[in-house]
Amino acid sequence: MKYLAAAALATAAIMTGAAAQPPADKPATAVAAAQAWKGEHGAKMLQGFMDLLSLPNDANDADNIRRNADYIGALFAERGFEMELLESEEAPPLIYGLRETPGATRTIAIYVHYDGQPTEPAEWTHPPFDPRLYSRAMSEGGEEIAFPKDGDAINEDWRIYARSASDDKAPIPALLAAIDALDEAGIGFTSNIKLVFDGEEEAGSDYLDDYLGEHPDKFADVDLWLFCDGPTHQSGRPQLVFGVRGVTGLEVTVYGPNRGLHSGHYGNWAPGPGWRLAQLLASMKDEKGRVLIKDFYTSAAPISKAERAAIAAMPDTDGKLRETFGLAETEMNNAPLGERLLLPALNLKGLKSAEIGALSRNVIPPTATASIGLRLVKGNDPEEMLTLVEKHIERQGYHIVREDPDAEIRTRYPLIAKVRRSGGYPAMRSDMEDARVAPLISALKEAADDGLILNPSLGGSLPLYMFESVSDAPIVILPIANYDNNQHSADENIRLGNLFYGVDAYAAVLTMAAD
Amino acid sequence: MKYLAAAALATAAIMTGAAAQPPADKPATAVAAAQAWKGEHGAKMLQGFMDLLSLPNDANDADNIRRNADYIGALFAERGFEMELLESEEAPPLIYGLRETPGATRTIAIYVHYDGQPTEPAEWTHPPFDPRLYSRAMSEGGEEIAFPKDGDAINEDWRIYARSASDDKAPIPALLAAIDALDEAGIGFTSNIKLVFDGEEEAGSDYLDDYLGEHPDKFADVDLWLFCDGPTHQSGRPQLVFGVRGVTGLEVTVYGPNRGLHSGHYGNWAPGPGWRLAQLLASMKDEKGRVLIKDFYTSAAPISKAERAAIAAMPDTDGKLRETFGLAETEMNNAPLGERLLLPALNLKGLKSAEIGALSRNVIPPTATASIGLRLVKGNDPEEMLTLVEKHIERQGYHIVREDPDAEIRTRYPLIAKVRRSGGYPAMRSDMEDARVAPLISALKEAADDGLILNPSLGGSLPLYMFESVSDAPIVILPIANYDNNQHSADENIRLGNLFYGVDAYAAVLTMAAD
Repeated sequence: MKYLAAAALATAAIMTGAAAQPPADKPATAVAAAQAWKGEHGAKMLQGFMDLLSLPNDANDADNIRRNADYIGALFAERGFEMELLESEEAPPLIYGLRETPGATRTIAIYVHYDGQPTEPAEWTHPPFDPRLYSRAMSEGGEEIAFPKDGDAINEDWRIYARSASDDKAPIPALLAAIDALDEAGIGFTSNIKLVFDGEEEAGSDYLDDYLGEHPDKFADVDLWLFCDGPTHQSGRPQLVFGVRGVTGLEVTVYGPNRGLHSGHYGNWAPGPGWRLAQLLASMKDEKGRVLIKDFYTSAAPISKAERAAIAAMPDTDGKLRETFGLAETEMNNAPLGERLLLPALNLKGLKSAEIGALSRNVIPPTATASIGLRLVKGNDPEEMLTLVEKHIERQGYHIVREDPDAEIRTRYPLIAKVRRSGGYPAMRSDMEDARVAPLISALKEAADDGLILNPSLGGSLPLYMFESVSDAPIVILPIANYDNNQHSADENIRLGNLFYGVDAYAAVLTMAAD
Repeated sequence: MKYLAAAALATAAIMTGAAAQPPADKPATAVAAAQAWKGEHGAKMLQGFMDLLSLPNDANDADNIRRNADYIGALFAERGFEMELLESEEAPPLIYGLRETPGATRTIAIYVHYDGQPTEPAEWTHPPFDPRLYSRAMSEGGEEIAFPKDGDAINEDWRIYARSASDDKAPIPALLAAIDALDEAGIGFTSNIKLVFDGEEEAGSDYLDDYLGEHPDKFADVDLWLFCDGPTHQSGRPQLVFGVRGVTGLEVTVYGPNRGLHSGHYGNWAPGPGWRLAQLLASMKDEKGRVLIKDFYTSAAPISKAERAAIAAMPDTDGKLRETFGLAETEMNNAPLGERLLLPALNLKGLKSAEIGALSRNVIPPTATASIGLRLVKGNDPEEMLTLVEKHIERQGYHIVREDPDAEIRTRYPLIAKVRRSGGYPAMRSDMEDARVAPLISALKEAADDGLILNPSLGGSLPLYMFESVSDAPIVILPIANYDNNQHSADENIRLGNLFYGVDAYAAVLTMAAD
């Protein structure tokens, strides 16, 4: 309980009801206070984070995940939050908390997830729940160093290695530090702050929707959702993100003979399923990357002027990414990544028919299968998009089935495709010009040294659509982790410069202008 | 050594120099003699075959394969053959034998392979080298029965189960029986008979070419090669086959990013290798099965009038095969299988890119690979055919490499294909109207009750081209095994009706007209 001393101060500050700064420059003052606080208490903050990272947090490890929830709940309770664990027998607890601010007319909800990806300790340099400090990234020659003492200077390139150091425990010490810094400096918040800490995000957040639905009163009054997860921009600059893509997919199997046939005895006579699959797939996407499925792009929300301007203002890392990934050219004649992410994507995740290489045999295989993933944008309904793909398959002459065809079906239809739809969920994209977001942007610019990137959408998917159903508040993503954090892999880490940016960012959030 | 009694008779017959029948009806007489012999000695013949089948015959099992060679050599030596084992340290012995016929001006070489496919005993109903007799096929409800005694009636539907019962020891007892029947009846041969028994066919016959090349004097005088292997026609009728297809292949890998990329972060931007592979493959073959590669059909020898007539005369099993294999339609609007096999084939043996099903991940994979097999016909040079495929790939805009591309190559060429050629060999197709084959056809019709099918080519591949280089003799294939013999699988078997047909067929061969 390393935060106890600070917490005592904080409680004192709350009691005095500090809200004395003129609203307009409050975030700047708050960021200055946060920086001063870090200079004094940085070492203690790291120690506290180490304690939190020592708690194993696989969502399937019920005992340990509860230890995390209790521990985190106590940390915020000590800082004036009314804490509650929402419970279910089917999922880890959802940590809920509220700290009301006298006079505030706005409620900001902060989402974090406190569970982490399962670990394979054998792949780690150190055990995943035995956090270590390094002088820089291991991959850049960093070496393990001792923890700093109070008042020691802390280098921004140092890294902490542990599971969830970035994804997604990092926001917790950063938010705690921001609260302590403001409380200690007597700078009052400008909003009511709600905490919504998910305990099974890495396991799919299957129960999150139920938690939200079971407690509508707790979430209906939220005016702004702050989703604290993910990495900063590839350029290294901080970003505020307004959307995520949705996701769905399907698996398509096409058929040749009902058993593997000798490619000599029947080659040139029995149709090969691999050729059929190739022809079907080639009909779906052209060589430049344009999807040829009818209406595939029709339901996508248009890219707004603000979004287009934001993309134009983003650092152009496309050329560097192409070099890094060994690509001479990207889709649609090197169209900008930022724009491409605002369109639905058709991805070929996997292909399989019989065997290749040493296992390959002289056979006409019975089947060929493609695993196809869709990334969706605002406006795309997952089921409707899958239906467009199925209709396209039918237009190529295929009879669609849901199970492997029997003899009767096989001899009736020359072209048969088994289609299995996966689940999925829609995209979420908030209006970049929403008035409720404007003060957040202004505030974060104070924390980001004017380097803040406004990003219309991540390419990846998160089920943020869930939060759209509980209130009409805009939802934005505020990542703090470094891009190269080894998320989901061994030797996950956070760069201290990023963790410290988080303290400033939350100090700005807590004090953003009231309108 | 169950053949000893018959062998003694045979030797006596040779000594008397029997060749008294008028040449024209000799095969008919010989077949009648063979049938009479089977009625008397059928049980003994089966016992002898059992002994041969008890010898394990994996080409890689050096001791046992030599036991087979010695055992078989002795059987023919007892019947007046001058036997020799051609030796190499690198391969099983090639069994060579010659029985000269007084006055004969023609030499027929009979090829058989005495090795068998490796076995997995756990998959067999009985151990593979513990031969058993069944009342009919196991798959048709057959039951194990006791071996017949001398003079017992033998049912044509009985089956012997053991490795190599069909492939390819069956010709050995059939040929021995034919020799014994003729010798016993005092019917002289009309040709010199050479034996060429391969001991490593199932292991690739890698050394056969060397054996042939090292002993040119032994093979230069051959006037007709009789290749005794394979099954009779799918219709169940006996066949004489004039060719085989050649075989070669290549593996093509196309590239996306140099590592798996998150399909959300980069989907719609980074090119997916699966799409590229699909587009490339779709450019090679149309939906009806026509290969679109330039000049793919150009070098194929035209189908002769005789071949076309032979195909037209073959039983039409296409519809039944389509039903059996669950195909509503076959390539080129149900074009006849027999004709299709006289064209080169482009087969897609396997496809792979990342994973499908439960293992599938949201990734843009780095590579996609197709394993492509070619079946070749007379006129096709394996290397030249592969070159045509490569040129086609280049025409689609690909830069061809032989190893995975490095960073420099990757960033220079948008489309890169790694092509790995496999080995292979050309087709062989003898002229159906060759005068040297005409008496064979006439003779076999006596054994086949006029049911003989003349088949221009098997669809499968055998390296018969090797025999073309040692003499200019026509090469024909005379199969005796039942089509459903479980070749290369567990519970390999031969139907006794087929084994007994073999006796008649060889009796006809040994007495075919001299011109």
